[in-house]
Amino acid sequence: MTTAHTPSRRATRRLADTPATVVDAAITERSILIVPIGATEQHGDHLPLGTDTFLAQSFADAAAERFGDELDLWVLPTLAVTKSDEHAWSAGTLWLSADTMLSTMREIGNSVAMLGARKLVLLNSHGGNSGLLDVACREIRRATGLQTFLVHPVLPPDHGGHGADDEHGFGIHGGIDETSLMLHLHPDLVDLDAAVRNVPEWMGEYEHVRFGGTVGFGWTSDDFGPAGVIGDATLATAEHGEHLFEACLRTLADGLREVARFDFPDSASAPSPDLTHDL
Amino acid sequence: MTTAHTPSRRATRRLADTPATVVDAAITERSILIVPIGATEQHGDHLPLGTDTFLAQSFADAAAERFGDELDLWVLPTLAVTKSDEHAWSAGTLWLSADTMLSTMREIGNSVAMLGARKLVLLNSHGGNSGLLDVACREIRRATGLQTFLVHPVLPPDHGGHGADDEHGFGIHGGIDETSLMLHLHPDLVDLDAAVRNVPEWMGEYEHVRFGGTVGFGWTSDDFGPAGVIGDATLATAEHGEHLFEACLRTLADGLREVARFDFPDSASAPSPDLTHDL
Amino acid sequence: MTTAHTPSRRATRRLADTPATVVDAAITERSILIVPIGATEQHGDHLPLGTDTFLAQSFADAAAERFGDELDLWVLPTLAVTKSDEHAWSAGTLWLSADTMLSTMREIGNSVAMLGARKLVLLNSHGGNSGLLDVACREIRRATGLQTFLVHPVLPPDHGGHGADDEHGFGIHGGIDETSLMLHLHPDLVDLDAAVRNVPEWMGEYEHVRFGGTVGFGWTSDDFGPAGVIGDATLATAEHGEHLFEACLRTLADGLREVARFDFPDSASAPSPDLTHDL
Amino acid sequence: MTTAHTPSRRATRRLADTPATVVDAAITERSILIVPIGATEQHGDHLPLGTDTFLAQSFADAAAERFGDELDLWVLPTLAVTKSDEHAWSAGTLWLSADTMLSTMREIGNSVAMLGARKLVLLNSHGGNSGLLDVACREIRRATGLQTFLVHPVLPPDHGGHGADDEHGFGIHGGIDETSLMLHLHPDLVDLDAAVRNVPEWMGEYEHVRFGGTVGFGWTSDDFGPAGVIGDATLATAEHGEHLFEACLRTLADGLREVARFDFPDSASAPSPDLTHDL
Amino acid sequence: MTTAHTPSRRATRRLADTPATVVDAAITERSILIVPIGATEQHGDHLPLGTDTFLAQSFADAAAERFGDELDLWVLPTLAVTKSDEHAWSAGTLWLSADTMLSTMREIGNSVAMLGARKLVLLNSHGGNSGLLDVACREIRRATGLQTFLVHPVLPPDHGGHGADDEHGFGIHGGIDETSLMLHLHPDLVDLDAAVRNVPEWMGEYEHVRFGGTVGFGWTSDDFGPAGVIGDATLATAEHGEHLFEACLRTLADGLREVARFDFPDSASAPSPDLTHDL
Amino acid sequence: MTTAHTPSRRATRRLADTPATVVDAAITERSILIVPIGATEQHGDHLPLGTDTFLAQSFADAAAERFGDELDLWVLPTLAVTKSDEHAWSAGTLWLSADTMLSTMREIGNSVAMLGARKLVLLNSHGGNSGLLDVACREIRRATGLQTFLVHPVLPPDHGGHGADDEHGFGIHGGIDETSLMLHLHPDLVDLDAAVRNVPEWMGEYEHVRFGGTVGFGWTSDDFGPAGVIGDATLATAEHGEHLFEACLRTLADGLREVARFDFPDSASAPSPDLTHDL
Repeated sequence: MTTAHTPSRRATRRLADTPATVVDAAITERSILIVPIGATEQHGDHLPLGTDTFLAQSFADAAAERFGDELDLWVLPTLAVTKSDEHAWSAGTLWLSADTMLSTMREIGNSVAMLGARKLVLLNSHGGNSGLLDVACREIRRATGLQTFLVHPVLPPDHGGHGADDEHGFGIHGGIDETSLMLHLHPDLVDLDAAVRNVPEWMGEYEHVRFGGTVGFGWTSDDFGPAGVIGDATLATAEHGEHLFEACLRTLADGLREVARFDFPDSASAPSPDLTHDL
Repeated sequence: MTTAHTPSRRATRRLADTPATVVDAAITERSILIVPIGATEQHGDHLPLGTDTFLAQSFADAAAERFGDELDLWVLPTLAVTKSDEHAWSAGTLWLSADTMLSTMREIGNSVAMLGARKLVLLNSHGGNSGLLDVACREIRRATGLQTFLVHPVLPPDHGGHGADDEHGFGIHGGIDETSLMLHLHPDLVDLDAAVRNVPEWMGEYEHVRFGGTVGFGWTSDDFGPAGVIGDATLATAEHGEHLFEACLRTLADGLREVARFDFPDSASAPSPDLTHDL
Repeated sequence: MTTAHTPSRRATRRLADTPATVVDAAITERSILIVPIGATEQHGDHLPLGTDTFLAQSFADAAAERFGDELDLWVLPTLAVTKSDEHAWSAGTLWLSADTMLSTMREIGNSVAMLGARKLVLLNSHGGNSGLLDVACREIRRATGLQTFLVHPVLPPDHGGHGADDEHGFGIHGGIDETSLMLHLHPDLVDLDAAVRNVPEWMGEYEHVRFGGTVGFGWTSDDFGPAGVIGDATLATAEHGEHLFEACLRTLADGLREVARFDFPDSASAPSPDLTHDL
Repeated sequence: MTTAHTPSRRATRRLADTPATVVDAAITERSILIVPIGATEQHGDHLPLGTDTFLAQSFADAAAERFGDELDLWVLPTLAVTKSDEHAWSAGTLWLSADTMLSTMREIGNSVAMLGARKLVLLNSHGGNSGLLDVACREIRRATGLQTFLVHPVLPPDHGGHGADDEHGFGIHGGIDETSLMLHLHPDLVDLDAAVRNVPEWMGEYEHVRFGGTVGFGWTSDDFGPAGVIGDATLATAEHGEHLFEACLRTLADGLREVARFDFPDSASAPSPDLTHDL
Repeated sequence: MTTAHTPSRRATRRLADTPATVVDAAITERSILIVPIGATEQHGDHLPLGTDTFLAQSFADAAAERFGDELDLWVLPTLAVTKSDEHAWSAGTLWLSADTMLSTMREIGNSVAMLGARKLVLLNSHGGNSGLLDVACREIRRATGLQTFLVHPVLPPDHGGHGADDEHGFGIHGGIDETSLMLHLHPDLVDLDAAVRNVPEWMGEYEHVRFGGTVGFGWTSDDFGPAGVIGDATLATAEHGEHLFEACLRTLADGLREVARFDFPDSASAPSPDLTHDL
Repeated sequence: MTTAHTPSRRATRRLADTPATVVDAAITERSILIVPIGATEQHGDHLPLGTDTFLAQSFADAAAERFGDELDLWVLPTLAVTKSDEHAWSAGTLWLSADTMLSTMREIGNSVAMLGARKLVLLNSHGGNSGLLDVACREIRRATGLQTFLVHPVLPPDHGGHGADDEHGFGIHGGIDETSLMLHLHPDLVDLDAAVRNVPEWMGEYEHVRFGGTVGFGWTSDDFGPAGVIGDATLATAEHGEHLFEACLRTLADGLREVARFDFPDSASAPSPDLTHDL
């Protein structure tokens, strides 16, 4: 009977591909749950609306394939409609309010708390979600006791990354890196002829108020003109995309390995689920 | 310049595969937007958690492929985590509260209202969503002026369908029909050895309080025992699945063709978006 | 002392007519609680705004009077302001948002869970509430453990009923049946001189997108013209009303008798109130 | 045609008794809308749960009957389930949360704003609603521009009234006054044999922290013992009830007459509906 | 070790001035927690926006200084942005919606419930908060079991006070009393040259619909003209302010002394925190 | 008359100290509004609960004093109760839920949008607010059109700062920097005898999962032991505090000067307030 529930009945490491009973039996304290978080939002004239979703999905799947057994990774369904309000000015963008997105994350956290895993990773490829997911990590932690983590597989300059040299730290949306990754992963969905350069170099006159600067600012993507792109998509290549994908995947692997062994010195001090402040 | 925005730049009929600018140019008054709505919920020991998501996705994709050009169909990203509270007792089920699910639908409605389409179809494969999506259809209609439609590609007995003969009207979850469809569409994800029969034949003693009866009742799936299945998965076959899929698809085509030509006699009487009662 | 709390101190079967202590003592596991749910919404030029409230109240009271002792029925206060957004275009309609209506139902559910009854019936006479009440049945079930039921004493064509012959399946609001019932129950409130025929026969060209069809659609009542009525009020008679009332009441009795004896085979499997997903 | 819409088609002054078209034509700038607000909550062993609802309804109906034509009063459906959290400890009490009750009031305000009236009176018989209705008056005023008023037909000591002499200012729930009113209005629903005296005379040692004192306090009715009553029901008589009812009705008439002529000196300064802070 | 946590380590009676560990050790069953509640709202041309905040803070601090040791008072941070919607028409007013203000109060209640105190006093100087704080007192009581109290250190005519003679009961905002108090407490922030008289004496023709009358009404401050003041600021003096402050403080002391000794006869009947109706 | 409204009537640069009319006249397109955002939360055994509030207030006041005229700064009331859920385990912490905190920020944004300023700076001294304030910046921008900025006057290692050398990047709460600043600003409120060292040096074995690392994690402060401090308070000195305060203030001045001159190249592209997605 119990043999019926062994991991061998698992076809893939996607939760959606697996029966509930198999998932329940296979997931243990050492398992790591991954929620890929994408977006459906304008990415200029050359990249598809689902760019962030494709990226989140690709990184999660590649992680599961290459080191899923090592780290016992389980991939949940990718969220394709998230908080893209900075692109709400563009037809085609689908977006959730901050409230609905936060509720969604809380409820996914509550749902997975029934499984045996202790660790939940939010794998996010859409920068506009980051602040909210930071909030969600703590909310889920407190509500469920799960250890929660937030990973961005690609780090643009507004997330502490370096970005492509030719964008001088001003490329954060639909530019060299994202376009190259899509050329590598889904070349059929990229129309490089429609790519443009829209690098806000004028931002160079600011030291603090800039992407990754010490002063945050509440922008929307049309603040940077009508192109929709913030970066230089014309310089993208599939080769750079492949290189970048592999490099990011290695960093992701390192991060997830740390997640796997991460613990507070005395795990007994971990908070129990919050019953008093649930509302 | 405008040539860059012609529909020829569209790779598929999935919104996520297409740039915002292309979508914006291609979608017109005659376009029909489709939101496939699945679920991630227990389906017994033999079917994967994502069964409903696979079904919604398959029907939407097949519709787009076979009569997408005829009806100018556009497929939005499939919702994979929805209102599955009747399966919340099972580890592995991921679910949204009614409030979050309704907000999600409203916000998708608001988002697509920027496009040029006049019609939005919710293509739902998870019965537990039906009441809420009925509410959402009216909410979106009133908030945006869009004509909204709700389609269930497979009609189980609790949705007015006949169901498989061998289940006598008592098969609604993970039984002959769903299992057969999955055997047809994703045989690698079905473990037929684990299939069981759990047909609540005792319900036959009720005329009104039964699936599809005149008296609704608020059940959860463990009311019918621990199997998770409500139906007879053991009788499923790929052949039946293929037959059923094609039959459902024909009905779906008929329904969508009616959606395409549907209009109220004097279209000028359509309500303008509701500004006074937004809250 | 305990004699003071016997059912003999009950004047009627309305909760509101009875002291709390008497209610608490009289209501037991076999009692059935009924919440009549009406509406205050335009019903054309000939029927009063409270038509649905009168109907819900009349059926609930008649049920209590005729088979209240047999089934130990208890009638809660009738809800007179509910989700009538499809009639929001008309002055006089009073309506709650979906959110407020759902909260109202949840909180009534929470309130009655302190009583000794195990079964709660939502007796609804306003079609616009149905999807939401379907949601509420499950919400209350999960939050309180109560068995919940949803009954429509009159079944119009969009609820699976046949409707009056002369309306050919297109009469759902203020037509023959509702007008006749009101002529029977409250003739003083019906102005038959103002009755009109507004039967959307054009809908006959649709097989799927129609009342009771397989494709739902999010209409508002002014989609069918300015009359407010969807049906043929001119054919209503008090005789038909009386006949229909009695027939519906017999069906209601049958349904409630089933409710009274309804149970899942092993009642021990009934879910305990949901503590983890309360929000 | 327009004659069909004259007030002569009005059967009563209850909105629910009247067609939407008739209401729309009859209600003008001088009309006063009244929302009777009751409760369903424990009132001790001798009074029915619906006591407050009966009182609100009776005062509203009597006002409509006696001076409805003079002041053009229109009575909306009585709210029977409201904010009775101070009695939530008792089985039989049905209650809404503060949030749902406030939403209900806002939405009723939004609904009636389509009518031609300028004045809305909340006629409240349940003290536990008062703070919230005070909030609602301003909310509705700002959202709709309606002039809003809050009237308590009976003023217990915690609302600035004197109360019955024999209760010394400590009778506020189910005591002499409420019981007497019910003996006058619905003697069949009062079980005077079950009446008790539960006057919190110990409160006499406080000058500030007491009903109607300068220091409010957040009590629940079981703070005063298990009786449910706060007052002395044993002294109630139908005669006192009749006398009190007539006296209160005269005061109500005076108040409503002031409402009818009330206006700010320069009515042009009335705020237009609030569009910027709707949320 | 425990000596480190004695009250001697307390610098003041403000919670914010004290370490958590010290607070935790010092606060006991006899402690009284005080939340000063002000506002940031227009007060005419002569008083600063923070007038109510200064008043709430001053009364709380003076109470703590003069009888803080006697009554073991602890002062929480003053709330400076509250429900000032009646002044929302004026630039400079900062205000919370009723929903956010109520949530804020609930969450402060939840927060302090971890401390050892049994009593929480809301010390409110902004009349526009009163209805909502009345609701909050009961909410916090039910959610946490804390005894809650609501005190207005200055009682204007709409709160049952007498007000300044020269305002004849029509001075409630920025008039003699508030201006005098500010002249006493913060003379540098008062511009008496800009003071005006705006006493709505026309209200004298109403007996019921007036400040402190039996009929409440939902006003905004611009209903009384553009001055922002409702009263006569020109008559204010620092001497009156000092006198009034001292008188109010004595009354506040009396009230708090009652709070300190207040209890229901059998304290065991106090409700335990509400677990069933948390939402 | 207009002279009465000149800036000369301003006593300070605090909004709360100034009449509404003066504020309205003085604030122009070049003004910068500052909301200081503190917290009331445990800071170990040696620092007061209000530490973050004191810091936010001190930086805002110093900025206003030293370069307020240069940049036309206006300081709003300091928020003292914010999102401190990571310290909710400790008595004395007062905290708002994410929902209430976000609503508060939105409503402050809505309130100030009536003033003439175009720029709003959130000056935050509590790290636990950062993700949420990042969300709020965009929300306010979209709802009101205001340019919004987020500044942290002190940058701990989890915010991209270096932190004190002796804490090796692991000091983020109540350690050298915060304690030193308080010794400089409010020495009377610091009990250095109670200071402890609690530096999570074990975190040094992680490269990604650490404060300021590429993998965020949802911690609560008791994850690091019961001390409440995360850092080494024993090494704090008033001298370091003074030095740090002045250095941070210079950086803040630089940041605010950039805010003052910041603009997008074509300011006409700034989004107008969002009317369609308000909910």
